Amino acid sequence: MTSKTLRVALVQERERGSREANHAAIEQAVARAAGAGAKLVLLQELHNGPYFCQHESVDEFDRAEPIPGDSTARLSALARAQRVVLVGSLFERRAAGLYHNTAVVFDADGSHRGTYRKMHIPDDPGYLEKFYFTPGDLGFTPIDTSVGRLGVLVCWDQWYPEAARLMALAGADLLLYPTAIGWDPADAHAEKDRQREAWITVQRGHAVANGLPLLAVNRVGFEAARDASGRGIQFWGTSFVAGPQGEFLARAGEAEPELLLCDVDLARSDAVRRIWPFLRDRRIDAYGDLLRRFRD
Amino acid sequence: MTSKTLRVALVQERERGSREANHAAIEQAVARAAGAGAKLVLLQELHNGPYFCQHESVDEFDRAEPIPGDSTARLSALARAQRVVLVGSLFERRAAGLYHNTAVVFDADGSHRGTYRKMHIPDDPGYLEKFYFTPGDLGFTPIDTSVGRLGVLVCWDQWYPEAARLMALAGADLLLYPTAIGWDPADAHAEKDRQREAWITVQRGHAVANGLPLLAVNRVGFEAARDASGRGIQFWGTSFVAGPQGEFLARAGEAEPELLLCDVDLARSDAVRRIWPFLRDRRIDAYGDLLRRFRD
Repeated sequence: MTSKTLRVALVQERERGSREANHAAIEQAVARAAGAGAKLVLLQELHNGPYFCQHESVDEFDRAEPIPGDSTARLSALARAQRVVLVGSLFERRAAGLYHNTAVVFDADGSHRGTYRKMHIPDDPGYLEKFYFTPGDLGFTPIDTSVGRLGVLVCWDQWYPEAARLMALAGADLLLYPTAIGWDPADAHAEKDRQREAWITVQRGHAVANGLPLLAVNRVGFEAARDASGRGIQFWGTSFVAGPQGEFLARAGEAEPELLLCDVDLARSDAVRRIWPFLRDRRIDAYGDLLRRFRD
Repeated sequence: MTSKTLRVALVQERERGSREANHAAIEQAVARAAGAGAKLVLLQELHNGPYFCQHESVDEFDRAEPIPGDSTARLSALARAQRVVLVGSLFERRAAGLYHNTAVVFDADGSHRGTYRKMHIPDDPGYLEKFYFTPGDLGFTPIDTSVGRLGVLVCWDQWYPEAARLMALAGADLLLYPTAIGWDPADAHAEKDRQREAWITVQRGHAVANGLPLLAVNRVGFEAARDASGRGIQFWGTSFVAGPQGEFLARAGEAEPELLLCDVDLARSDAVRRIWPFLRDRRIDAYGDLLRRFRD
């Protein structure tokens, strides 16, 4: 099988204090990525600002933006200017009182190729997303681009094998996860290690189970609590690219902004699925209870 | 939360040339496990003999056994004598021309608590199981024992997140995988590493996604090809126990028979599921296409 190499770039960033500063950092990174030959660039979750979901405040809805809107126009122009497929992540205002955590995909000509609204919404201390985001209603639908069919999912989705599988069944060529996840500073080192390793492992597992390359990009830096009840979050970075056997192809550090470049051979999935044809043997006749909350 | 420790033992063995020799090795290992305080012992896949599925021969059906039968009687007596819950794996003859790859579970009083027939059946060079085994028709049903509800799955099942999820949704306390997997000696080292790491990773991913401890036991040793078309299999051992964040609790080597003992805290799953309540947020309204072969 002839290889089919796609150079990808993951923009691991920190919150830089304003939307303008974040956009400027993103524009620089995407330009560097394009200069290095990347054809697909993935930005982290909610890259326009801080991870505001540490507290619940109605004022935070001021951050939300319509789609299309100023940010999509800017991302579109950036994709076109740098001739890359660009995956962004926005706080979407769909209507008054109706908001989503939404990924947007632009092709290298600047065209808006599709939108994915985060389907699984967490709600845990420090990650109070159910207050802000209505669960997505666009389903698990990959987005076609000039570099392939992108299975874009967002953060909490990454813990769900169902999401990755549905993207694979819809013919996704890659799985992509913009993310914002970090440590509670009060946790012990051993617990922190387990959490980050679990986050890496479950995603590598999706790559294996589906025979697909996987890109996960996470933010870095400490973001203080936004009210007295919180302890802040130390985002752990560690963005990575895995191949279709779950093997690491590239890994970023845990503390600094980083542009992670990686060559992914898209033909490798076909080769791996020939030796491990998992899709052939799924017992769809016996999976009915996956549609139940619990089998009780 | 108070801890609830269960000592488990995995019997990583090699083919010893006869059913009698294999049984003797198992009996010694289970006695050692019980002597060390284990309350649950897991045997590898098809532990009574060689991994005969390297070729297709009708004569191999002579190895199959009825359930109940001599082997279940012997496993039952062993469980009772050693006061352990024992999970075995047999080539089941259900009727003339109807065979399964079947796990059997005995409680510490020797009672047969349940049976699981391997649901996902592989068929790849060296692993020609579709010739021998009819896919299971008992579904993904965990088995209740005095040490907990066991989500027993077998080998190829371990690549399927659906199988682990269905066991978790049915209230399994642990996931258990008797296995026979190894390397094609002709493969390059890098490919061998990727394969074994993928096998480990996808299973650790099931532990994470479901917040459950997981036991995987594999055989060791080289088993020669059974006809001229094969190259033989070097079984890679590497049996392991993972906790509910996918963390390694115990790991065996890759070459030698080994009795792997490990303490598993069953209360830890509850604690982990409180910080990562994945079951809460499953989008069962949007998973319907998991019951399709492909979304085309």
